[in-house]
Amino acid sequence: MTVKRRTGRRPGASDTRGDILTAARQVFAEKGFDKATVRGIAREAAVDPALVHHYFATKEGLFVEAMRLPIDPDDVLGRLLDGPREEVGERLVRLILTVTADAQAREPVLALMRSAMTNEQVALMMREFITNALLYRVADGLGISHLRMEAAFAQLIGVVLARHVLRLEPVASADLDELVELVGPAVQRYLAS
Amino acid sequence: MTVKRRTGRRPGASDTRGDILTAARQVFAEKGFDKATVRGIAREAAVDPALVHHYFATKEGLFVEAMRLPIDPDDVLGRLLDGPREEVGERLVRLILTVTADAQAREPVLALMRSAMTNEQVALMMREFITNALLYRVADGLGISHLRMEAAFAQLIGVVLARHVLRLEPVASADLDELVELVGPAVQRYLAS
Repeated sequence: MTVKRRTGRRPGASDTRGDILTAARQVFAEKGFDKATVRGIAREAAVDPALVHHYFATKEGLFVEAMRLPIDPDDVLGRLLDGPREEVGERLVRLILTVTADAQAREPVLALMRSAMTNEQVALMMREFITNALLYRVADGLGISHLRMEAAFAQLIGVVLARHVLRLEPVASADLDELVELVGPAVQRYLAS
Repeated sequence: MTVKRRTGRRPGASDTRGDILTAARQVFAEKGFDKATVRGIAREAAVDPALVHHYFATKEGLFVEAMRLPIDPDDVLGRLLDGPREEVGERLVRLILTVTADAQAREPVLALMRSAMTNEQVALMMREFITNALLYRVADGLGISHLRMEAAFAQLIGVVLARHVLRLEPVASADLDELVELVGPAVQRYLAS
């Protein structure tokens, strides 16, 4: 098996998984999410495609790891479906606010947002991942329209921006439970089938 | 009256208003919105403070013009209060979507958002203007809490980002009336006293 050498690695130490992630970041950035393939990423990393599937079950999972996203689409859908349907909005708001409360977890998301606002290629990659890999799947899983799902997403991303980027008071320092109680019903309304 | 010369101006042509705007951009960026004063901006532009007030009634109005914002806080509040209280959410969503539908009008807002995401000084300036000059005044005018107003703002900024920056489909191409119908009630819920 051919493994590319990255500078700074200990001589002899192999980091196939790291090589695949590096290749994935490059290929996703160049081709966007939809057109990137596991085969193409394997070629860039100079490994067998089976090895990519061994380390990362799906292209979505590989993207999540490559971009260091704090949460996996499959995980989101699983958590949303796990509980009463009339509380799905509250669960989603709590999940997003809890994940983004950790500065280390939210930083890669904010970095991608920053890039997407100035770089159309990053915006394309984000757009494809957010819609095809995330929102459409969750919407289809919940049986709601893609437009309703995006309105809910807009509410959530707006709260994260107001709380953690613009840091507007009082929302920046608001208690998590208070925010869930305030914003949950708005999201629930969109997600109600 | 001393007027600073800007490069590229026709010889002899005076542009006091333009000089004040240039000075305002510099002073707001350096000091933030709260600490910037009309007096300080007048000094930077080398004009009498009365002249600043002659061209721009208030510091808020000067900020709006200096940043080329498409809408004035006073104007927002006026339009929101002008009509049935139970339709204030719908009016606000329609106003924001209509203003941001014009690429030329929304570009300065997006440029500020971009800068705020990478530059803490711009973020501070935006934070102070958005809260003290815009959201708190509208919230107080409507008699609702600042937190509810910021939740509504989060919904609106999220929709603008999804529609015009990330350009997620279907929200990017959705009919304006359809979006008002979908998002209006969520905003109305926050703005209901």
